[in-house]
Amino acid sequence: MPRDLIAALDIGGTKIAGALVDGSGKLVARARRATPAQEPGETVMREVTAVLDELSGSAQWSRVAAVGIGSAGPVDASVGTVSPVNIPGWRDFPLVAGVRETVGELPLALVGDGVAMTAAEHWQGAARGRTGALCMVVSTGVGGGLVLNGRLHPGPTGNAGHIGHISVDLDGDPCPCGARGCVERIASGPNIARRALEGGWRPGPGGDTSAAAVAASARTGDPVARASFERAAQALAAGIAATATLVEIEVAVVGGGVAGAGDVLFAPLRRALRDYATLSFVSGLEVVPAQMGTDAGLVGAAAAAAQQAGLDGFGTPSRELG
Amino acid sequence: MPRDLIAALDIGGTKIAGALVDGSGKLVARARRATPAQEPGETVMREVTAVLDELSGSAQWSRVAAVGIGSAGPVDASVGTVSPVNIPGWRDFPLVAGVRETVGELPLALVGDGVAMTAAEHWQGAARGRTGALCMVVSTGVGGGLVLNGRLHPGPTGNAGHIGHISVDLDGDPCPCGARGCVERIASGPNIARRALEGGWRPGPGGDTSAAAVAASARTGDPVARASFERAAQALAAGIAATATLVEIEVAVVGGGVAGAGDVLFAPLRRALRDYATLSFVSGLEVVPAQMGTDAGLVGAAAAAAQQAGLDGFGTPSRELG
Repeated sequence: MPRDLIAALDIGGTKIAGALVDGSGKLVARARRATPAQEPGETVMREVTAVLDELSGSAQWSRVAAVGIGSAGPVDASVGTVSPVNIPGWRDFPLVAGVRETVGELPLALVGDGVAMTAAEHWQGAARGRTGALCMVVSTGVGGGLVLNGRLHPGPTGNAGHIGHISVDLDGDPCPCGARGCVERIASGPNIARRALEGGWRPGPGGDTSAAAVAASARTGDPVARASFERAAQALAAGIAATATLVEIEVAVVGGGVAGAGDVLFAPLRRALRDYATLSFVSGLEVVPAQMGTDAGLVGAAAAAAQQAGLDGFGTPSRELG
Repeated sequence: MPRDLIAALDIGGTKIAGALVDGSGKLVARARRATPAQEPGETVMREVTAVLDELSGSAQWSRVAAVGIGSAGPVDASVGTVSPVNIPGWRDFPLVAGVRETVGELPLALVGDGVAMTAAEHWQGAARGRTGALCMVVSTGVGGGLVLNGRLHPGPTGNAGHIGHISVDLDGDPCPCGARGCVERIASGPNIARRALEGGWRPGPGGDTSAAAVAASARTGDPVARASFERAAQALAAGIAATATLVEIEVAVVGGGVAGAGDVLFAPLRRALRDYATLSFVSGLEVVPAQMGTDAGLVGAAAAAAQQAGLDGFGTPSRELG
């Protein structure tokens, strides 16, 4: 029996998804549980184990070569623990040890969810074939991951690419992370809505105060709604430009619910990028929408595990010098 | 004859230095010319050739295995050109082709001066043995370079680590680069002095308006001088924290004339870093002074060339997965 599948987990505050992923990125088996996010840590772990039990009960389990876990962060791949902001029962929780109880000694990789999404976009999405890329999710929060030298760059703890918590406004509003003026504090969906409301924006039908409702108003020309998206775009541009200036990337891939606003976000984002990405070696930087759908977390966790285990296929690039 | 030396060039707005560097980092031959920075590009190139001629006339030249060039930036290693801000006659100047006229087909690496300094600190200085490091020069400008996964990360064009031109104050003062609120615009020596003067600081003996004179006043307790260094420290901290949050580094190494202020800079810098480096995986970040002296550019250019050519010695780490 060839070992040609990877078992993938995508763990967030809402759901725990699992799949067996083949070398073309197809999900050949799936399992899923709701995350009991407010329960004690052991209760959450039981649901992870239930997902794994379902997968390992499948006839294909004997083909599994490695296990990839993408988790809401922060994670600590160096010791195998996770502390997801949205799962309070998990603080320095030994997720890897818990998963090993089901999967045994298979090669295993743990990365943050932004890193997993990046691996998926690099393998099969908008960052395919790129040597340097920043992939971002702009949604309730702002997360991301990096491709450098043609390879995923998870960093020693699996958290690299955390663009939501770099400060682009050092005297700005306090961020829940403890710093000030973070990209997320300006550009996340809730902050786009908050700023619009503070400016006098009238919520959408049924009192809808989502960023999507702000985007709908912006599309009809509402100046307050447009201004809130423009401010978000400015913060994203400063963060993307900083990343390009620091590590050299060719492309920034932007996904997540806020990216669903389309040109309401992307047009001012591309304009603002010209203001902040000024040096010759970053001025050609492209910004494109993400291409992977809701399975990106699973596909990417598989790709990250394949890269870490040195397996062929799964988008693993040939090894090259940095 | 063993090929165990690397020919190194360090090209800046003031001087063109050259050396033959051995595997222990010793400079076994040297040459040096003033940079005719305001002359036409070909005149500047003639001085580079003069330095190379002097080196290639040495008995040891036959031992040279590779050539490393560190140049004031921006550079473009992908096409072999340089456009140093301080050498106006060089815009997209084909420096690599010019050097090849003397050195022939030896393996050759071109990197920015911040990258070269970083290679030196990683090989023999304050970043030795580190898996992830940001090395910075805070002086007339603010430059830098990165070590990721235990290796120098020059980026495809040799400019990675340009921390001086990331914006940490997106609505801040215009920077000559075209952006706003760049780290350099707040933290460079001339900007420390400018801010102190604007606040009413009285210049040092003989009308000395250098950052060193501001540091001397700060040491005697002058509140305006201290405040100017504290603001610089805050911008540097925001930039260092952003770097750590994006790529995961263990240490930031700070050198250059402004770092010579010692605790006047490092004490507020370490304090400010606690305000901006808040996520678990960056909160252990250290900040230390640079250790390499004035030959860092030459030693580092040699190390960068050795890494790129895959030569052993010269601090070249064993190849590892990213």
